[in-house]
Amino acid sequence: MSAEIVEGFKFEQRHGKDRVRVGRVWKDPSNGFHYFVEWNVGIRLLSNCLNSYVRDDNSDIVATDTMKNTVYVKAKECQEPLTAEAFAILLAKHFTSFYKQVCTAIVKIEEKPWKRIHVDGQPHRHGFELGSGKHLTEVILSKSGALKISSGIEGLALLKTTQSGFEGFIRDKYTLLPETRERMLATAVTATWRYSFESLHSIPSGPTYFTDSYSAVRKVLLDTFFGPPNVGVYSPSVQSTLYQMAKAVLNGFHDISSIHLKMPNLHFLPVNLPNPQNPSVVKFADDVYLPTDEPHGSIEASLSRIHSRM
Amino acid sequence: MSAEIVEGFKFEQRHGKDRVRVGRVWKDPSNGFHYFVEWNVGIRLLSNCLNSYVRDDNSDIVATDTMKNTVYVKAKECQEPLTAEAFAILLAKHFTSFYKQVCTAIVKIEEKPWKRIHVDGQPHRHGFELGSGKHLTEVILSKSGALKISSGIEGLALLKTTQSGFEGFIRDKYTLLPETRERMLATAVTATWRYSFESLHSIPSGPTYFTDSYSAVRKVLLDTFFGPPNVGVYSPSVQSTLYQMAKAVLNGFHDISSIHLKMPNLHFLPVNLPNPQNPSVVKFADDVYLPTDEPHGSIEASLSRIHSRM
Amino acid sequence: MSAEIVEGFKFEQRHGKDRVRVGRVWKDPSNGFHYFVEWNVGIRLLSNCLNSYVRDDNSDIVATDTMKNTVYVKAKECQEPLTAEAFAILLAKHFTSFYKQVCTAIVKIEEKPWKRIHVDGQPHRHGFELGSGKHLTEVILSKSGALKISSGIEGLALLKTTQSGFEGFIRDKYTLLPETRERMLATAVTATWRYSFESLHSIPSGPTYFTDSYSAVRKVLLDTFFGPPNVGVYSPSVQSTLYQMAKAVLNGFHDISSIHLKMPNLHFLPVNLPNPQNPSVVKFADDVYLPTDEPHGSIEASLSRIHSRM
Amino acid sequence: MSAEIVEGFKFEQRHGKDRVRVGRVWKDPSNGFHYFVEWNVGIRLLSNCLNSYVRDDNSDIVATDTMKNTVYVKAKECQEPLTAEAFAILLAKHFTSFYKQVCTAIVKIEEKPWKRIHVDGQPHRHGFELGSGKHLTEVILSKSGALKISSGIEGLALLKTTQSGFEGFIRDKYTLLPETRERMLATAVTATWRYSFESLHSIPSGPTYFTDSYSAVRKVLLDTFFGPPNVGVYSPSVQSTLYQMAKAVLNGFHDISSIHLKMPNLHFLPVNLPNPQNPSVVKFADDVYLPTDEPHGSIEASLSRIHSRM
Repeated sequence: MSAEIVEGFKFEQRHGKDRVRVGRVWKDPSNGFHYFVEWNVGIRLLSNCLNSYVRDDNSDIVATDTMKNTVYVKAKECQEPLTAEAFAILLAKHFTSFYKQVCTAIVKIEEKPWKRIHVDGQPHRHGFELGSGKHLTEVILSKSGALKISSGIEGLALLKTTQSGFEGFIRDKYTLLPETRERMLATAVTATWRYSFESLHSIPSGPTYFTDSYSAVRKVLLDTFFGPPNVGVYSPSVQSTLYQMAKAVLNGFHDISSIHLKMPNLHFLPVNLPNPQNPSVVKFADDVYLPTDEPHGSIEASLSRIHSRM
Repeated sequence: MSAEIVEGFKFEQRHGKDRVRVGRVWKDPSNGFHYFVEWNVGIRLLSNCLNSYVRDDNSDIVATDTMKNTVYVKAKECQEPLTAEAFAILLAKHFTSFYKQVCTAIVKIEEKPWKRIHVDGQPHRHGFELGSGKHLTEVILSKSGALKISSGIEGLALLKTTQSGFEGFIRDKYTLLPETRERMLATAVTATWRYSFESLHSIPSGPTYFTDSYSAVRKVLLDTFFGPPNVGVYSPSVQSTLYQMAKAVLNGFHDISSIHLKMPNLHFLPVNLPNPQNPSVVKFADDVYLPTDEPHGSIEASLSRIHSRM
Repeated sequence: MSAEIVEGFKFEQRHGKDRVRVGRVWKDPSNGFHYFVEWNVGIRLLSNCLNSYVRDDNSDIVATDTMKNTVYVKAKECQEPLTAEAFAILLAKHFTSFYKQVCTAIVKIEEKPWKRIHVDGQPHRHGFELGSGKHLTEVILSKSGALKISSGIEGLALLKTTQSGFEGFIRDKYTLLPETRERMLATAVTATWRYSFESLHSIPSGPTYFTDSYSAVRKVLLDTFFGPPNVGVYSPSVQSTLYQMAKAVLNGFHDISSIHLKMPNLHFLPVNLPNPQNPSVVKFADDVYLPTDEPHGSIEASLSRIHSRM
Repeated sequence: MSAEIVEGFKFEQRHGKDRVRVGRVWKDPSNGFHYFVEWNVGIRLLSNCLNSYVRDDNSDIVATDTMKNTVYVKAKECQEPLTAEAFAILLAKHFTSFYKQVCTAIVKIEEKPWKRIHVDGQPHRHGFELGSGKHLTEVILSKSGALKISSGIEGLALLKTTQSGFEGFIRDKYTLLPETRERMLATAVTATWRYSFESLHSIPSGPTYFTDSYSAVRKVLLDTFFGPPNVGVYSPSVQSTLYQMAKAVLNGFHDISSIHLKMPNLHFLPVNLPNPQNPSVVKFADDVYLPTDEPHGSIEASLSRIHSRM
């Protein structure tokens, strides 16, 4: 938001529409297959509409209802399947070019994880089941053509039953946590990565570029978190694992200029029941855990190429 | 709950502990593989503890904290991986046999859908990812040995983009819905089925009996909902599809005596934008939909073998 | 649900519409005041529509879309403010009398706790703020005229910082909880009470009867839970307090034939930090607590007049 | 976060603990009254602990478990009731002074809206009921002493049944919304205001300063939204109302340097049922509405004194 001076104050504003849900079906007459997406779209416009705030004059306001309608019109106009990223770009392009008042459009899309079902080992032509995880995208486009495009995964819940420890941290009078080289490690990763494209014409033209990238980044995050199938990889801290994951993405994808990772430490507490009558009843041996979401550790970081802008 | 007469009133009561979370890891030294489950356990005891309500005498009360501890002790004692159903039975057996005051124990378990991860096409020895859907079970066991055991799936979200219609229903002055032979069909199935076993010794001994059954029932529900991969199957109503699904389960599984299905109709509304300036802008052609959860149709039914008890 | 025999199975079914939201404003021209309610309506019909399940014939089906429309038509027809209970009765009456196929209608309403705002100590004519707690009602009406009507409160969160203990319960090898005469007591009460009216003509005619009863029951529940403002009342167990609350309602309201109370024990755990370097750092003295929702005790019971039906 | 250069990348990080819940009771022996707060604390530390990310060396890490313990120790040490703001300051002061590695501490607290209950018109000495709305605070304190302190309200749900309209906005081929001078206006305000204090010693010393300010800001927001009790105040747009509310706060509170308001437009749609058989059945007359949360308009803005930093 860029500030304006109004009645002696600095003023910044934006308005838009959230939770615009749209389902889109495409049917391929050549093979009878249906393609389907369900998107939850959020739009914010930065626009010159100060008069609506200050002078009760709405003549520069794009009604949020109009934004919602536009989502449906544009979904209709897409004659071929497209990625959430491409649809967000298309909407942002519309808002910044159609309205003289709009300086910048911010479009966020969350795609529901509908997956084609298989029946008798065959892909079903028109059947879908909901999977897990969320694919997100955000496009920020200004009238001048300056573009920021990022994608993300939310709620990628991962757990390993060994190859994790935490030792050598600061010990003081508030410290009770024992050091360990053997614990559970569980998290729900939120990853957001920014692509390096800074204008519309630099976007790759392949129709599946962004979904392919999404899957490939997801795979790198998982492989780095878990390590090889037979031995895994030791995690000396969530911090260290997070850093390895971020580095693997930047090293693997030259189109990605930065990545932000949030990895809450979802604790699995060792269960010991100190029963004086029966001291051996439950003595923890890396076997019985109390999972808890509250409280949880919160580790987050971003890694960027030096010449990129976050 | 069986009623008692107290101070001139009928009185029924139960108490227990909810949301007892436990994670259990088993390690197979022969191959280095770890097995892992995460359960959310709920316990209710029907017991003779009227004095705690009426006479401030807690001497017949099993503290809910004690119930929680028992979950951890019993998880510890399980030396081999077991199903949620088997763990629920084990807990119910404990409560009804250990406490003379307990007439009946009701144990519910929800298992988190952790799935073993694959890296480089190989199953990972100790890595897990969260999937979708919830496996539930409920065991009701009385001191006399009478047993009810049921399993279920919650939130099995399914969608098909064609082969669904709704015609010929009652039309009156409150009816606005057009008839159609072509619509989306989406639902989030909650299925609960009761096994026919009525005592502990009739339970099958195979260690994976209940998880195998769970997967097989799930597959029958999906296959019936979607029909063959190439052509699907026409659904003339949610009612009809639900009935076919229930019948397929009872016909396919002789150990199952009844099934209850809840199938909300999660509407995907056709999008038409009646723009007087531009009437052709969005005219629905089985392509653009508005998905909504609110309001939703609610269809539920149960089907049972005639000589069974629900 | 009454069972039918279908293709060799027992079959029970119902269908309806959930989450039908309606806001209704009434304006009093005499004083300029607006009256406002927001309801979330759920409808279930038990009806003779077996053919839709079994023979793909929908001619006996009331479409759930029609049910939704009916809510709006009937809300429109109400020319005067009315209680949620009265609106539920009105809808149930409509469905059981208008459709020959409908044997029984079950109508649930949840009323949002909008409260008139006060500005400068004066009630505002058209301004409302959302409060806490939920007022619920359920009406079950059969074609024969048999009526069950109940009301309820959900999520009435209460807490007292003393005058609660728990002693003398069963101690065994799974018991770790210390006995105490001094603890926090916190719960979120769900209360559901059934009125004794068994037919439409026995319903009291006063337009505010049910909201007055709701407020009065709520007050009795609170007063019994907390006791006198200066000394409170000692609670020897959640069980005992629950029983006193239920009894106070049945003794105070002769139109109420039974009450069901669910009172989860939302634990506030004493905080002791056993620091070997500094043992006195946090030693619990009824001052610092760890509030937790998971796990929680679950105590529930119902109390009824002997000749009532629950 | 200030960036560092690591292995050829820019790197920024923070870690902390979320959802640390603490209840604190103070008892006044002079009058028998208990004072009680329940806080949900989130902590983030910006600290020099790069080695934990990059070199598997945790020796500069404050364990998040230690942060949690500190919350309990510090709550214990507070011998007198204090505001959430004061507790957040106290924690931030501790972390930035006790650990040489910590540059900046960010402490967020959410206070549960427990209110003292009244029985028989008298304040109860130890009884509390949960109200609505959430009081939030965030303190950012750096080792140098630079301070940012803000407070907020979340989920302040307000509704007026008249005195709202929306006219004269941009009309184009995507516009379907009719203009109106008569509609419902409903929102759930999130307000965050920053105090002008920029160091610890400039904080007012009164023990209730921040809770008094909170109540006073809340009152100004409400009064401005609703207008006088008899006539209200016309809202030509959410934008205009939001601006009036922000301006009233800055004009009323000289200690507040800026305010951010988010006011989703929670739509109450007019209900018209276009029944060809019975066109008059439901014709909207400012009486029957369909409330919906999805989609919703999103209007947000901030207003600041010119020389302040947001």
